[in-house]
Amino acid sequence: MRVLVTGGEGYLGRKLVNALVGRGELVGPSGKPEAIDHILLTDMAPATAAPLADSRLSYLGGDIADPAFVENLFAEPPQAIFHLAALMSGGAEKAFEAGYKANLHGTLHLLEAARRAGNVPRFVFTSTIATFGGELPDLVLDTQRQTPQSSYGTQKVIGELLVNDYTRRGFIDGRSLRLPIIAVRGGAPSTATSAWASDIVREPLLGHAYASPVLPTDRGYLLSPRRAIEGLIIGHESAAERWGGDRSVMMAGLACSAADLVAAVGRQGGSAAAELVEWTPDPFIRDIVTTWPTAFRLDKATRIGLAPDASVDEIVRNYIEDDAPTA
Amino acid sequence: MRVLVTGGEGYLGRKLVNALVGRGELVGPSGKPEAIDHILLTDMAPATAAPLADSRLSYLGGDIADPAFVENLFAEPPQAIFHLAALMSGGAEKAFEAGYKANLHGTLHLLEAARRAGNVPRFVFTSTIATFGGELPDLVLDTQRQTPQSSYGTQKVIGELLVNDYTRRGFIDGRSLRLPIIAVRGGAPSTATSAWASDIVREPLLGHAYASPVLPTDRGYLLSPRRAIEGLIIGHESAAERWGGDRSVMMAGLACSAADLVAAVGRQGGSAAAELVEWTPDPFIRDIVTTWPTAFRLDKATRIGLAPDASVDEIVRNYIEDDAPTA
Repeated sequence: MRVLVTGGEGYLGRKLVNALVGRGELVGPSGKPEAIDHILLTDMAPATAAPLADSRLSYLGGDIADPAFVENLFAEPPQAIFHLAALMSGGAEKAFEAGYKANLHGTLHLLEAARRAGNVPRFVFTSTIATFGGELPDLVLDTQRQTPQSSYGTQKVIGELLVNDYTRRGFIDGRSLRLPIIAVRGGAPSTATSAWASDIVREPLLGHAYASPVLPTDRGYLLSPRRAIEGLIIGHESAAERWGGDRSVMMAGLACSAADLVAAVGRQGGSAAAELVEWTPDPFIRDIVTTWPTAFRLDKATRIGLAPDASVDEIVRNYIEDDAPTA
Repeated sequence: MRVLVTGGEGYLGRKLVNALVGRGELVGPSGKPEAIDHILLTDMAPATAAPLADSRLSYLGGDIADPAFVENLFAEPPQAIFHLAALMSGGAEKAFEAGYKANLHGTLHLLEAARRAGNVPRFVFTSTIATFGGELPDLVLDTQRQTPQSSYGTQKVIGELLVNDYTRRGFIDGRSLRLPIIAVRGGAPSTATSAWASDIVREPLLGHAYASPVLPTDRGYLLSPRRAIEGLIIGHESAAERWGGDRSVMMAGLACSAADLVAAVGRQGGSAAAELVEWTPDPFIRDIVTTWPTAFRLDKATRIGLAPDASVDEIVRNYIEDDAPTA
């Protein structure tokens, strides 16, 4: 089986590629586990050496907003596509045209290439919790209308709709998974508005003071990177019947407050670490972050087999095991 | 004020242009009624002589799927845009690529031209009841997730999302109105799956026998062309505050059965007309038609001031007054 991973050099992309290499097989259109013969990784960022060490991996750098480049990716049509490439939330809000190019037209070019290839690949599309916003009920159901409050969220709902239509038409076997806030992310603090949920754990555990832009009572809907990668693979492998006609699902996450996260840091990393957090609420960040829903009824996620982290402590431990620098 | 009407040679487009000429003014970005100086009508179909008799009207023929053509439409930027052009339901389902070109890319080109013009025009987008489908509750609320079961419906929800985002960004002042089944349409019977709701009235009133592909108990959610045009103008004129952040609305319609329509034909046109209907159910047509919702809670439509026809008889009378050939 040939696999294509877009955004393969991103934070989740690299983890996904490593997971696929580790498994060595994947359930695809045949409905049975098949050996992965080849993974084509694409990104605008240059390839890192490590993941390319495996002979089954190759890398083709370029911009999916360019249809000719996308054609090249399909020179040998993949049976499995994981579409993770995107200009992220903050970036797509600042750069209007670039956001639509990458996130709307890039997705369209991939879907069109898959349609023309004619082999009905499984197509995993990464959508986002940011497709929800505005006025929302306390508990968000699978039938909730998505009214995104950002261009990024808009582009991602459009992707979900396109995946549904291309699937209904028989061009792909699509699955769109809406990612919760991914935390705890490794690496340097980012400028994303959801970065607090990672930084508030990672920075104290690294021994750094952290000025939290949110209040202790502010809540987020979180999923660890480890569970997110598991979820994308489950999303690929699960039988089409579990999805029905609407191929979108909100992934199961864990709702917790900033205070919950700091308490878990204390339990997993010691009270000295937890005391490195200072509360310095930032109205700009809080105005965005507190509009995202934190309570979902997960009927469909459960049907597909998507599981949240079991506890806040598990979220923190997954970071320590998977991403924290070792001494 | 300059007005642009796309699809201006279509059935609703012509009625809208006539209504605008008749009124002579329109509330636009200023919030007050302004004289209409000029209406630019565009369509792929050639201009008909009649509506062009008025000196305020001009016609530019071409394809909105071509961005260069759309640029020409904005040589003098309009303050009011009514975007009615579309490859309709049946057509967009049969011609996949042409449907996406006209309905997705055409709409994008118009939004982009409006954005570049920089004058924040009011932008009325015609969406459709066909954005709903699949599993639905008995009563559809404004918060219902749209899961269209056709490429046309998909393209129209995408249009709604784009109108919301371009509005949120301050590029346009957008309003998307989801049209119910428009009935009774004048002219020849069409191949649309919803055509029965017009044909079952028009053909008997013309003295023609009519073989109904739906059963007497099958229901539709209907709006007369007269009310639809009123609604598009109200949609344009209503204050932005009534819309809120989500600029889409399901227009108020009237739910009725095929038998209700035939009974109204009998009352308005005589029992001899009503007896010209024969019931010959067509599974293909019924499978599509009976999945469309017929019951909506109209909170938002009411807030904006959109009204349905008062009765089935009014729907039939509006046809007789507005469209039926006079002897």
